Amino acid sequence: MTQAPTTPPAASDSSAPKGLEGITAGDTTKSRVDGVNGKLFYCGYPIEPLAEEGSFEECVYLLWNGELPNAAQLESFTADLRRESTVPSEIWDVLRPLVKGSTQMDLLRTAVSAMSAFDDEVADTREAIDGRDEIERRIANRLQARISTLVAGIYRLKQGQKPIAARDDLTYAANFLYMVTGEEPGEYEERIFDAALTLHADHGFNASTFSARVTAATEADIYGAITSAIGTLAGRLHGGANMRVMRMLEKVGEVDKAEAFVDDVLSQPKGRVMGFGHRVYKVEDPRATVLRRMAKELTDRTGNSKWFDMSVKIENRVKDKKGIFPNVDFYSASVYGSLELDPEIFTPIFAVSRTSGWLAHVLEQHADNRLIRPRANYVGHGERDYVAKADR
Amino acid sequence: MTQAPTTPPAASDSSAPKGLEGITAGDTTKSRVDGVNGKLFYCGYPIEPLAEEGSFEECVYLLWNGELPNAAQLESFTADLRRESTVPSEIWDVLRPLVKGSTQMDLLRTAVSAMSAFDDEVADTREAIDGRDEIERRIANRLQARISTLVAGIYRLKQGQKPIAARDDLTYAANFLYMVTGEEPGEYEERIFDAALTLHADHGFNASTFSARVTAATEADIYGAITSAIGTLAGRLHGGANMRVMRMLEKVGEVDKAEAFVDDVLSQPKGRVMGFGHRVYKVEDPRATVLRRMAKELTDRTGNSKWFDMSVKIENRVKDKKGIFPNVDFYSASVYGSLELDPEIFTPIFAVSRTSGWLAHVLEQHADNRLIRPRANYVGHGERDYVAKADR
Repeated sequence: MTQAPTTPPAASDSSAPKGLEGITAGDTTKSRVDGVNGKLFYCGYPIEPLAEEGSFEECVYLLWNGELPNAAQLESFTADLRRESTVPSEIWDVLRPLVKGSTQMDLLRTAVSAMSAFDDEVADTREAIDGRDEIERRIANRLQARISTLVAGIYRLKQGQKPIAARDDLTYAANFLYMVTGEEPGEYEERIFDAALTLHADHGFNASTFSARVTAATEADIYGAITSAIGTLAGRLHGGANMRVMRMLEKVGEVDKAEAFVDDVLSQPKGRVMGFGHRVYKVEDPRATVLRRMAKELTDRTGNSKWFDMSVKIENRVKDKKGIFPNVDFYSASVYGSLELDPEIFTPIFAVSRTSGWLAHVLEQHADNRLIRPRANYVGHGERDYVAKADR
Repeated sequence: MTQAPTTPPAASDSSAPKGLEGITAGDTTKSRVDGVNGKLFYCGYPIEPLAEEGSFEECVYLLWNGELPNAAQLESFTADLRRESTVPSEIWDVLRPLVKGSTQMDLLRTAVSAMSAFDDEVADTREAIDGRDEIERRIANRLQARISTLVAGIYRLKQGQKPIAARDDLTYAANFLYMVTGEEPGEYEERIFDAALTLHADHGFNASTFSARVTAATEADIYGAITSAIGTLAGRLHGGANMRVMRMLEKVGEVDKAEAFVDDVLSQPKGRVMGFGHRVYKVEDPRATVLRRMAKELTDRTGNSKWFDMSVKIENRVKDKKGIFPNVDFYSASVYGSLELDPEIFTPIFAVSRTSGWLAHVLEQHADNRLIRPRANYVGHGERDYVAKADR
């Protein structure tokens, strides 16, 4: 039983599978991901019409309530979001000393964490009291409203500009673009951006959503859960991916160089083209399909087709050579690029959209909660006696 | 395939097990929890001598390096921790507008998130580059050093007092108590507090450690991972438990009322005495055993035995009536109470200690990383056609 400190580690019989791949961690009524057939549904509705015919406000309502809103419900919900869109001025003061040394995602994580200080209702949600769900829905509404103002304002702080206040006469999508640029977007720009928000809203137990649930499952509050999710989304294997696709497109530089670029990357030992493959989808990611179709329409209208044309060439070359498919990050990069958004704001935009899914999952977790606490497979040193410092 | 919106939700055949209970989420070399026999080991060493004969600094070194330090290694490690213990002054400025509306855990979460702005090395750790582990060990050292200063300073801010700077001639445990109270602790107070820090340092894939790993597994940086862990620890089912034990002891009020209190709680339909039972331990939590032993010694010396005596009476009564055992939270409450620490700082103290385990797990996760992304079991509405707004 006792071993000398020099004994090599006692490995267990086998390693645990990594990353919980293929392991079911719980139930959800929010989204269904059909990886085999390349389909995605929110509360039973296929995402294609939700993105192309619906609006992001409808999508958020659906995820939080399980049904699409009628006209009156949608009007009331939209009004609620608009009314809550102002970020407390103290939050901008909190962020200012941090701007220089932080990424936009760092600032967003800190801002959401700090916002709990200005929510009088949050303290009441730290117990599973009767009526908690109603309070949490108000907090969710507030946070979804403010995250857009925050992300746009943080972008502007990083540019040395002042945040712009939300307007009360624009859609959620148009308001965001207005707060970033100071200009109202064109109709089609608004439409495709709105669709991109809907397409990124929810996706099963992706890593950031799962982290929000792990945090919420200790009965921690919504701000804590969304702060965790933002930190998780920031990683390059998750929300950081679409920015990296755009950096790749910038590096390619010209449409005519796309194929040679792919050939060059794939000829390298561990060469990987960004934005391809997905743990769950074995065929094309259905969100990529919608974004490609809408991006084509956008660039046909605007003539600003460079990033899109380059993406199509890269996609076809990778498919030919490797038989793998683009994921949502691949086409959201060229869509946002065509909207002339800075690549540094791509991941924060993902957060604006996914906040709706995170909130849906936190509400769902709290409605039927159980601590999320898996087992670890110990593969370290065998049992050994303590050795006093003088004898080491 | 298509269903009218009024169709009831399509439940899947069965619900997924909740909370990942009994599911192994990956390998670790850090701690081994033997729930059947009530034993806990860090890197092969039983926790009892680590807590009673060793020091928290040794424990942190062990968790990060897999071996206990010799005298020279320990001296160098301790010096590194002391050198990094100053929190950037901007962090206190960031926190001030938030103090009134925040709990100490809220402030700690925001502070750790904000500290990434003052770490010049963090940007280099967002890719799995050669040498990342070395950089991350320096960041880990910095964060472990500062978390103690932060937690003590946040406590003082909440009391309307100024933070106290760390000293360079005290142990980690003594320094913390000094920064909280402004006074050097007695020798035995220091010893038992040091032991409590060691006992809380690591515990397999507990919820906060697991959340740190989920965040780190997207290749997010250490600050993001520890921010998630703090938010997760804050929940009442996790780190919030020892504060709730203390609130219960305060409510009991007198030692002689302990047994009647237990009887009264257990006579209620869903009555639960705080600090008993554990998902993993089926017998007594070995950390509770050590803390009870040390608490007895502490209170024999100080004469301040009220909380301890009350705890023993509660423990015996609950054991007799329900056959369940106290967990680490149960005796850490009376230990911290006997040290005259405010219950509001109990969970932040847990964070000071567990930061060492969180950091060990983030280093381990990044050393052999894979995205943590489980599956969700969809139990929501069946597939249905989109309905235009006018038709709803």
